[in-house]
Amino acid sequence: MKITVDAMGGDFAPKAVVLGAIMAAKKHQAEIVLVGDEAVIKDIIAKENVENLPIEIKNATEVIGMDEHPADAVRVKKDASVVVATNLVKEGVCDAVVSAGSTGAAVAAAQLILKRIRGIGRPAIATPMPTPKGVTLMLDSGANVDSKPEHLAQSGIMGSLYAEHVQKKSKPRVGLLNIGEEETKGNELTKEAYALLKDADINFIGNAEGRDVPKGNFDVVVCDGFIGNVVLKFAESMAKTIFFLIKDAIKEGSLLGKLGAFLLMPTLKGLAKRLDVAEYGGAPLLGVQGYVIISHGSSDEKTISNAVRAAKAYVESNVVNHIKNALTEKKETLNGSV
Amino acid sequence: MKITVDAMGGDFAPKAVVLGAIMAAKKHQAEIVLVGDEAVIKDIIAKENVENLPIEIKNATEVIGMDEHPADAVRVKKDASVVVATNLVKEGVCDAVVSAGSTGAAVAAAQLILKRIRGIGRPAIATPMPTPKGVTLMLDSGANVDSKPEHLAQSGIMGSLYAEHVQKKSKPRVGLLNIGEEETKGNELTKEAYALLKDADINFIGNAEGRDVPKGNFDVVVCDGFIGNVVLKFAESMAKTIFFLIKDAIKEGSLLGKLGAFLLMPTLKGLAKRLDVAEYGGAPLLGVQGYVIISHGSSDEKTISNAVRAAKAYVESNVVNHIKNALTEKKETLNGSV
Repeated sequence: MKITVDAMGGDFAPKAVVLGAIMAAKKHQAEIVLVGDEAVIKDIIAKENVENLPIEIKNATEVIGMDEHPADAVRVKKDASVVVATNLVKEGVCDAVVSAGSTGAAVAAAQLILKRIRGIGRPAIATPMPTPKGVTLMLDSGANVDSKPEHLAQSGIMGSLYAEHVQKKSKPRVGLLNIGEEETKGNELTKEAYALLKDADINFIGNAEGRDVPKGNFDVVVCDGFIGNVVLKFAESMAKTIFFLIKDAIKEGSLLGKLGAFLLMPTLKGLAKRLDVAEYGGAPLLGVQGYVIISHGSSDEKTISNAVRAAKAYVESNVVNHIKNALTEKKETLNGSV
Repeated sequence: MKITVDAMGGDFAPKAVVLGAIMAAKKHQAEIVLVGDEAVIKDIIAKENVENLPIEIKNATEVIGMDEHPADAVRVKKDASVVVATNLVKEGVCDAVVSAGSTGAAVAAAQLILKRIRGIGRPAIATPMPTPKGVTLMLDSGANVDSKPEHLAQSGIMGSLYAEHVQKKSKPRVGLLNIGEEETKGNELTKEAYALLKDADINFIGNAEGRDVPKGNFDVVVCDGFIGNVVLKFAESMAKTIFFLIKDAIKEGSLLGKLGAFLLMPTLKGLAKRLDVAEYGGAPLLGVQGYVIISHGSSDEKTISNAVRAAKAYVESNVVNHIKNALTEKKETLNGSV
C-alpha cells in the first residue's frame, strides 16, 4: 500500500510534513510518495536518517494557497502538489492521499479528479472528535454548505459505514444535530432530513443536541458543513482557552496553588493527550471514489504521521466500496418496490 | 421599578425561583411580583425571613410545559404564569419579566402580548458568553430558525445597542458568525447578511469564525438561532465535560496528583466561577416592546437572583427605546435619500 502526501500543504509545510512522512514510514511501515518541490523535499530528507525507508518523491511545481478559489485553482494549476497527489490516487499509483493544505482545494481536487460516488450528491468531511465515551464522528465539518436534506441522509449512511468498518463499532448510533430532542423540532432542513434518516438502513437514534456532542452520546453526528465547521473550530478554540485560563489562574494564584499545579501536571498532560485531535491525524473525505484524508492546517510532524496511519486503516477498511454497495442496494430495493 | 418573575418556570421551580426572588429583593433591592400558584408560593415564602421585603404574589392557575407547542399554549392558556407575568409588563404594572420556563413559551408570550418593535422581523435571544477578554454576546441563540439576511442585520444593530447601553462598551465590535474570514466566504445567508451588516450604523468588524467566540475576539456575534442554540449548548456541555474529565483524571491519578489537585482547588474554583454562565442570570430577548429576561431551565436560586439584577440593569439602560429610535432614524435616512 502506498500513501501519497501533499508535501506543500499546511502552515508548517514542507518541513513538518516531510518529517511527519518519515516518521510514518518508520512507525507505521507506510510506503510514501511525497509530492512537491523536489529540491526542497530532498534538502529536508538529506538531514534525516532515511536509509532503506520506502519514500519516493514526485515533483510538483505549483502550490494552491489558502486565499485562492479552490475549484478554479484546481482547474488551472495542473501541477499543484494537491492536484498531482490526487492524480496519483486516480491513476492507481497510490492508494490514498493526505493533505494539510487548503481544505477547499483538497475537496475540489477529490471531486474533480476522483469524482463522487454515484448516488452521493456532495462529499462530506467526517471529523473525529474526542469524548469521554470515545470518538464521535461529526460530518459534514466543512466540505459543503447549504445542504439539502438528502445530503444529510447520505452523510448518515456514509458516517455509519465509516464508524463500522474503520472504527470497528457495531451498529453505530447515528444522530442528527438539532435544537431539540423531538422529531418535530428544528429548521426546515433538519425536519426533512429527520424523515429520510429514519428510513435509512442505519441505527438512527434521533436528534442530537449541541450538548450531546461533547458528552459522546452518539457515534456519528450529521449536520450541514457550515454548522459542523463552526462547531469544530469553536471546540478546538474552547479547549485551548480553558487550558490557557487554568495556566493563567495558576500563574496569578497562591504559592500552594503553584505547587499543586506542579504535582498535578502529569495528570493534566495525560488528559490533554486524550483530548488532542492530533492523535487522529486527520478526517476522511467521504463520498468520493478514492481515499482522501484531510489534515488540520496547523499539523505538526506527529499529526502527519498519524494521518498516514489513518489513511492506511481507511484503505484497509474498503469503505469506499461499502458506500458504493450500500447506495446500489438501496437503489435496487427502491426499483424492486416500484 | 418592579420585576415580575414566572415562579412556575424552570426545572427547580417553584422553590428555587421563589428563593431566588427573595435573594434578589434582599441583595439587589428589587421589587418583585411572583406569578404562579399562590398557595404554593406562600408556603415557600412562609419558611423564609421576608419581613418588609417588597415581594407581591399574583395568582396564576396554569403552567406551560416544555413539551407544549409554545404559541398554541400561550394562546389557549390565558392564565399560565408566563402569560400573566408578560401581561403585567404589557399593562405597565411591572417593568420587566424573568422566566426560566419553556424558552419557546416566553418568546411566544413576548411576541403575542408585547409585540415586536416596528422594523424588527424577528426577536433574538442575546446570550452572554464568558471569555478571557470579557463577555461576548451571541444572538440569536434560539428564538428563531431559518433566518433571513435582514434578521441577522437587525440582530447586529440590537446586539450592538445592548452591548453599548447595558454592558457599557464603547463601539462594540460586531462580528458575523461564519466559516472563513473573507467577505466572500459562507453560505447564502451569511453572504447576504454580510453586505447588510457592512452598511449598518454599527462597528461591524467582519466575519467571526467558530474559534473567535471562546477567545472573546468580538463583543457581539450574530448568527441564526439554530446555530446559536447548537453552539451554546455545545459550549455548556464541553466546559462541564472538561472539568469532569479533570476530576476523573485526578481520581485515577497518583497520590501526588491528588495532593496537587487539593492545593490547586481554590484556583480552579475561582476559574469555574469566572466561566459560570449563572453569573449573568439570563439572556435578554431583544426586538420586542418590553424587557424580557430568559433564564436557563436549570436555574438555581443564585441564577434567578442574578437574572433579576440583569433585568434591572436592562430596564435602566432604556435599550428598547434605543432600538426603536435606531430603526426609526434608519428609516428617515432612507426616506430622505430617496
